Amino acid sequence: MYEPLIQYIRNHSTSPLTDESIEAITKLFVPKKIRKKQYLLQEGEVCKYSAFIVKGAMRQYTVDNKGVEHIVHLTIENWWTLDRESWVMLTPSNYYIDAWENTELLLITRADAVSLVNQCPAFNEMIRLLDERNNIATQKRLTSSISFSAEKRYADFVNCHPDFLQRFPQHLIASYLGITKDTLSRVRKQYQKR
Amino acid sequence: MYEPLIQYIRNHSTSPLTDESIEAITKLFVPKKIRKKQYLLQEGEVCKYSAFIVKGAMRQYTVDNKGVEHIVHLTIENWWTLDRESWVMLTPSNYYIDAWENTELLLITRADAVSLVNQCPAFNEMIRLLDERNNIATQKRLTSSISFSAEKRYADFVNCHPDFLQRFPQHLIASYLGITKDTLSRVRKQYQKR
Repeated sequence: MYEPLIQYIRNHSTSPLTDESIEAITKLFVPKKIRKKQYLLQEGEVCKYSAFIVKGAMRQYTVDNKGVEHIVHLTIENWWTLDRESWVMLTPSNYYIDAWENTELLLITRADAVSLVNQCPAFNEMIRLLDERNNIATQKRLTSSISFSAEKRYADFVNCHPDFLQRFPQHLIASYLGITKDTLSRVRKQYQKR
Repeated sequence: MYEPLIQYIRNHSTSPLTDESIEAITKLFVPKKIRKKQYLLQEGEVCKYSAFIVKGAMRQYTVDNKGVEHIVHLTIENWWTLDRESWVMLTPSNYYIDAWENTELLLITRADAVSLVNQCPAFNEMIRLLDERNNIATQKRLTSSISFSAEKRYADFVNCHPDFLQRFPQHLIASYLGITKDTLSRVRKQYQKR
């Protein structure tokens, strides 16, 4: 179960991964299976874990006061899912995270992640790289959401995440892009004609 | 000129700032003054510098193919401004960064920042804290832009950045919030009535 995570850390660092580090990783990450529609996190709870997805698909969303869900993240195997603010600051979360497929996770608390950063250079390097990439990716999505047309947002999404089209239904993708299902339908037709 | 930056680093780390570190900081950060409307970065250029604002106000924006500006960041003294993706990856930027007031900056290249991270624990600590806060803040803005009404976005903006209302005109704030000037005007009236 730990092999995909070990491989992921190797792929995201240049420091060697020692036997001691692998031992620490398998000790500090806790396996968890959740079934489709089960929650990893609910609004108002503190996000105790950062979760590495070994297998499956998850979604993270807010629910507005009209009861409408707004998809903030869609994630599949080899991605991480968490509410970073709640995980770092220990504040109640504004998000729900649930499983869109039956999912296998490896969970780590903030305290254990900090401990691992200090004892495992490869993990430290990976975390810094991910933080940086995450900063860049979130900034890109924000710029896209402020500046780009629905057509460009859809084209960028297909370009970046072609595999997501097979894993998530249209209404979740529309919500992720911040557009209505009807707009997505129109945009997809235009895109396919290109 | 360096005092605000030194103080800023002290305020954002627990490690002591040694005389050697202060010397390295004043050596690696280069002062620059730019006048209102001058560019720090233009679309298509590589963002060579991360800039600490000592005094003044800057804006970062994209220009769409209809020539409309979309404000991505508004920044004032004690903030940083850069296109992180371009600065890290050395790719051409999609952004413009210009001065909204006469502005004094301290500039550092990526290579010098990496060098400073390695030789100055306080700077390293500050960078990690800022990366984390930046991740959290950008995620919040993205969620807000996807999920929240114009009313809530304006209320959150006033709450987080009361000082920005005096520094930037309405049309820039509307663009930053991703709403029209007319919507902002309506929302402000509602907000003042509360």
